[in-house]
Amino acid sequence: MSHDLESHVHESARRARAAALDLRAVPRATKDAALEAMADALIARTDEIVAANALDVTAARESGTGEHIIDRLRLDADRVAAMAQGTRDVVALADPVGEVVRGSTLANGLQLRQVRVPIGVIGMIYEGRPNVTADAAAICLKAGNAVLLRGSGSAARSNEAITAVLRAAVASAGLPEDAIQAIDPSDRSSSTALLKARGLVDLVIPRGGAGLIQTVVREAQVPVIETGTGNVHVYVDADADLDMALDIVVNAKTQRTSVCNAAESLLVHKAVADEFLPRVVAALLERDVTIHGDASFAATDASVVDATEDDYATEYLSLDIAARVVDSFEDAVAHIRTYSSGHTEAIVTGSLATAQRFTAAVDAAAIMINASTRFTDGGEMGMGAEIGISTQKLHARGPMGLPEMTTTTFVVTGDGHVR
Amino acid sequence: MSHDLESHVHESARRARAAALDLRAVPRATKDAALEAMADALIARTDEIVAANALDVTAARESGTGEHIIDRLRLDADRVAAMAQGTRDVVALADPVGEVVRGSTLANGLQLRQVRVPIGVIGMIYEGRPNVTADAAAICLKAGNAVLLRGSGSAARSNEAITAVLRAAVASAGLPEDAIQAIDPSDRSSSTALLKARGLVDLVIPRGGAGLIQTVVREAQVPVIETGTGNVHVYVDADADLDMALDIVVNAKTQRTSVCNAAESLLVHKAVADEFLPRVVAALLERDVTIHGDASFAATDASVVDATEDDYATEYLSLDIAARVVDSFEDAVAHIRTYSSGHTEAIVTGSLATAQRFTAAVDAAAIMINASTRFTDGGEMGMGAEIGISTQKLHARGPMGLPEMTTTTFVVTGDGHVR
Repeated sequence: MSHDLESHVHESARRARAAALDLRAVPRATKDAALEAMADALIARTDEIVAANALDVTAARESGTGEHIIDRLRLDADRVAAMAQGTRDVVALADPVGEVVRGSTLANGLQLRQVRVPIGVIGMIYEGRPNVTADAAAICLKAGNAVLLRGSGSAARSNEAITAVLRAAVASAGLPEDAIQAIDPSDRSSSTALLKARGLVDLVIPRGGAGLIQTVVREAQVPVIETGTGNVHVYVDADADLDMALDIVVNAKTQRTSVCNAAESLLVHKAVADEFLPRVVAALLERDVTIHGDASFAATDASVVDATEDDYATEYLSLDIAARVVDSFEDAVAHIRTYSSGHTEAIVTGSLATAQRFTAAVDAAAIMINASTRFTDGGEMGMGAEIGISTQKLHARGPMGLPEMTTTTFVVTGDGHVR
Repeated sequence: MSHDLESHVHESARRARAAALDLRAVPRATKDAALEAMADALIARTDEIVAANALDVTAARESGTGEHIIDRLRLDADRVAAMAQGTRDVVALADPVGEVVRGSTLANGLQLRQVRVPIGVIGMIYEGRPNVTADAAAICLKAGNAVLLRGSGSAARSNEAITAVLRAAVASAGLPEDAIQAIDPSDRSSSTALLKARGLVDLVIPRGGAGLIQTVVREAQVPVIETGTGNVHVYVDADADLDMALDIVVNAKTQRTSVCNAAESLLVHKAVADEFLPRVVAALLERDVTIHGDASFAATDASVVDATEDDYATEYLSLDIAARVVDSFEDAVAHIRTYSSGHTEAIVTGSLATAQRFTAAVDAAAIMINASTRFTDGGEMGMGAEIGISTQKLHARGPMGLPEMTTTTFVVTGDGHVR
């Protein structure tokens, strides 16, 4: 059974590979027409998608899934319309394929160009929201890649329905439908098969919790881009504007809690602790945040709970924050170096020198100076659609848009040049 | 024993990590001074290096190693001087750290900059030539990275001596000596420990034969860049200038055979076979090349041996070439898609349309149009030093120079911006 599933995944990957070869040379206008057709089809066949989703929702409810998770799973006409709009947004983005990244004529007259080309076959392994299915399909197609979509078992019917709609639309635009395929999520082995499909799959992107990411990295024999684990700190420096610091901490922690760019830890320089702690504790408690604090925080309000080592290492993704007073800038940096997942780290300071030292010392995908950590986002950073936020250092770091879904080829043109 | 070695590797990696954090903010002038000191020290301590190398050479000879391999291993004053010159060449290259890759002011006034920063700790696993030790150390240091050098057991004393010289030079320039460390190659487990050192090692680059690369990819839990396997084709099109084609085939196959950008297979369009085959077969035989050919090639000269399926899949790295007549451009592309390792593929053609179709259809790190495959090389392509040639699609593809040894950070500067 699991062996059958593996063969099935490899067969899908082979068809994706053939589709990807066809897509390499497709011009932007054709890809954009396919994206428009995909958006139109999502709208036209909304009922079908919502009906399939209702089966997933019923099954989830029967198996006792919490309402929070069910809300992420649930689709209605508005959410499908948002998926269609997301697809249309990709139409407006420049085609990265064919971009000349570097070019020169060498001393011997050889003409060198480094040109963006599609990566090929991309596997997505993701949990939860079915909108990832449409988002990933649109981004991969625009960058000329085929995609194998391995969503969660709980969203199987929804993803199957969305994929069927998108495939028909792609075919109607004259492109190979196998550029978009759903992978059967009924068994863990389909995920493993994707991760071991060397020579068939060029890249796997996992999107989900730390557990998923760890499993993927451990099992993968194809290249992987780790995404989204964010143990994000806000450091309030001795030279911070405390009104600004308060706004940023509250925004970074509470504007949306379930996302990787939400703040999980607060560090406050001791020089401003007496003034800042009462204000920030009151503001966070007012918004129902549970503060896991050190002795200084605990002394500020009785409802602060004692922080453990685990609290500083935890990505809560909830209305919880770990909080600590640090003796110095160096202590703040040392704390961040110990616990950071390399996603986003923020400093609030009025000192240019301190901001520069922070930038030099902290190794993360994004560093925020006097801004909320919530800005680490493809849309907010002006990249348009994003397929995930990379927390690894190779290939792409931070939000990944269309250019990150390409690789390059050196095209060297001579006139009989030899060495 | 093997467990001890693993602890030892992890301890080295931790020291490398500390050194890498120090190196992040070191300005170019200091790094260049260290590189000059490294070059000076290699010259000043040549005798010591050559003496250590002599022990490796003696041991290799006693264990029956072939003279070809021993020649690769052997160091003399000239070769050490070449290593020193290679190190000085890196001084002249621009520092990639701090380069702003992308920058803009967003609609809300946030200032966005994507800046190159060092990757951190890089592991090199390599075979053969001890000059890789100095080359890799210089490139990694210039890009602000610490490097763990795991060479082959047969070069252990040479690499240890070179590393000792470089470490002392780095320290004399005021930089942390642990930025350059040799890893004990006495047991396979040191290589495995590097590959599993998640959180300690940011990237492992294997340089060596296909077997080494496969092992590394299979075992790795840290990101890896595959390098250097080149099953390289030259396709002589119906519209080729046959004089040019002859020069290119001979150069690509024979100018140097043991390198990844040497040609391993020749494909000739049937329209020019009658005219080209006698010429190319004679030219290759004259240079002692063994031709593994199809029936058309076999019919040209009695010394052509019959090609098997294996021949088309083999990276010979020797004076052998697989050769075949193809019925069409499409057949040539299909053959290349089947057997290519994605390194370098060449076409010889006078037709612009065919050159463009080849570029669109073939997925490789480099495509040569009317030029020898031997030009896929960091030095030849004007990048200066190279640390390897990537045959994977993520992060870097083709020759990797200094910029490829960096990652980026998004630095976002606001004035209290929240969402």
